[in-house]
Amino acid sequence: MRTRAALRAALGEQNPRPGLVPTLGALHAGHQALIRQAAAENGRVVVSVFLNPTQFSNPEDLSRYPRDLARDVALAVEVGANLIYAPTVAEVYPAGDATTVHVAGLTDRWEGAARPGHFAGVATVVTKLLNHVRPARAYFGEKDFQQLVVIRRLHADLALPGEIVACRTVRDSDGLALSSRNARLSPTERRQAAVLWRALFRMRTAAEGVTDVDALLAAGEKAILIESAVQLDYLAIVDPTTLEPLDRLVPGARAIIAATVGETRLIDNVLLSRESGVGSAE
Amino acid sequence: MRTRAALRAALGEQNPRPGLVPTLGALHAGHQALIRQAAAENGRVVVSVFLNPTQFSNPEDLSRYPRDLARDVALAVEVGANLIYAPTVAEVYPAGDATTVHVAGLTDRWEGAARPGHFAGVATVVTKLLNHVRPARAYFGEKDFQQLVVIRRLHADLALPGEIVACRTVRDSDGLALSSRNARLSPTERRQAAVLWRALFRMRTAAEGVTDVDALLAAGEKAILIESAVQLDYLAIVDPTTLEPLDRLVPGARAIIAATVGETRLIDNVLLSRESGVGSAE
Repeated sequence: MRTRAALRAALGEQNPRPGLVPTLGALHAGHQALIRQAAAENGRVVVSVFLNPTQFSNPEDLSRYPRDLARDVALAVEVGANLIYAPTVAEVYPAGDATTVHVAGLTDRWEGAARPGHFAGVATVVTKLLNHVRPARAYFGEKDFQQLVVIRRLHADLALPGEIVACRTVRDSDGLALSSRNARLSPTERRQAAVLWRALFRMRTAAEGVTDVDALLAAGEKAILIESAVQLDYLAIVDPTTLEPLDRLVPGARAIIAATVGETRLIDNVLLSRESGVGSAE
Repeated sequence: MRTRAALRAALGEQNPRPGLVPTLGALHAGHQALIRQAAAENGRVVVSVFLNPTQFSNPEDLSRYPRDLARDVALAVEVGANLIYAPTVAEVYPAGDATTVHVAGLTDRWEGAARPGHFAGVATVVTKLLNHVRPARAYFGEKDFQQLVVIRRLHADLALPGEIVACRTVRDSDGLALSSRNARLSPTERRQAAVLWRALFRMRTAAEGVTDVDALLAAGEKAILIESAVQLDYLAIVDPTTLEPLDRLVPGARAIIAATVGETRLIDNVLLSRESGVGSAE
């Protein structure tokens, strides 16, 4: 479906409403896990494939993003997608478009600081897509943890349709979180990138005995330092709702990391303290 | 209904969806005209009564706003309202609320310039209310013309539920547009306030022969000057979609006015050139 009208016609006005898995395209096994879960929980699944220009603060980043709709459709249908919604830019941003959605506070730090305008782009496009599709449930990966928190916030604040479902991060055998960006890594960089998960894994293991935040951060930083080719952008232990750095572990506390390998910026996160309603265990 | 959940339970998930007339309370015959039209076009009508704090740039303006829910309910039910949705502030702005909706460009001039933050408050609350109620149609008065244009814009951009219906301005016998603010005018000020409509009426009449924008504006300004107690804030002839000042009349061109009488700021507008899809004739 290329237009909202065609999508609405295909879905009809009948309940039950579908599950939605919003993507930028370049589908991988992480997206497929979201689609599988959506297919298990909903009668019909819409996968949106929309490379949203407004969430890329770096135009080069946008131009390098892989585009292959035929491949995305095949991967989505293989695991249970019923409808692919691949709107044009003009369908999502109609002539004269002037409206943006902003989430204050939560978007100031971390990825928001590194990528100015990114979360306004995300918040705006997610608001639009939820209104285009009107799903019963929409599925987002925990890999982009700050994005998930921002989306939960705007979804509650604006009373958007359906329910937001968080899905655990899918990892390669060495623990690297699946991401469309991993395709940009050279074989050497790909090996080096595994240090992000090693650092998070070490922190999660240490958190079973140690609750001192500084000690946990030191353990994670030490693990990263072993791989001198990896530039740490941030490593922090944050509250899972406010994303503010924590002085001490609380239920649901998350370790979040961003680091650059070669020219590719990667992010990941892990739940440190399990007794929480937010996020799944990994 | 005080909560979104109670409203949803009362409405059920069945079609057809209701008509919605959003108000700040302090209902008058202008609101009643909106409710009558909604009742004629929808099986059920929801009137929302919510004195939205975020659209008042001046706290004193908010504190002076009349509040009398029992009276509002009576006036709404009298003309066909089936459900009154009067949510608490916490229902519309839940704990931790951080999300705002912004409409760029359209909100820079006129009321946007006079009332900083006003339209962000309007855009945000209208987005929320449309999502709370999910109407088939939502009714707004043409009296607040810039507000109507801003709401049409965000409704299209964010693909919000239902259809936006514009309703013609209801006027007193001397032409003064009905407004909750008129109650603040002293008898003398009330008489003086009629000059706003006299200026617009003169411009509309002149526009049948004259198409020179400067000549029309001069005619309107001259009419206002007669009433020295009335301070003109702006008088302009604008494009009905972009709200930019026009060099020459186009179909749908609007004359818009804001003026202060005593301590009360009033606004009004009129269609100058009838061949237009935007707005009704008056």
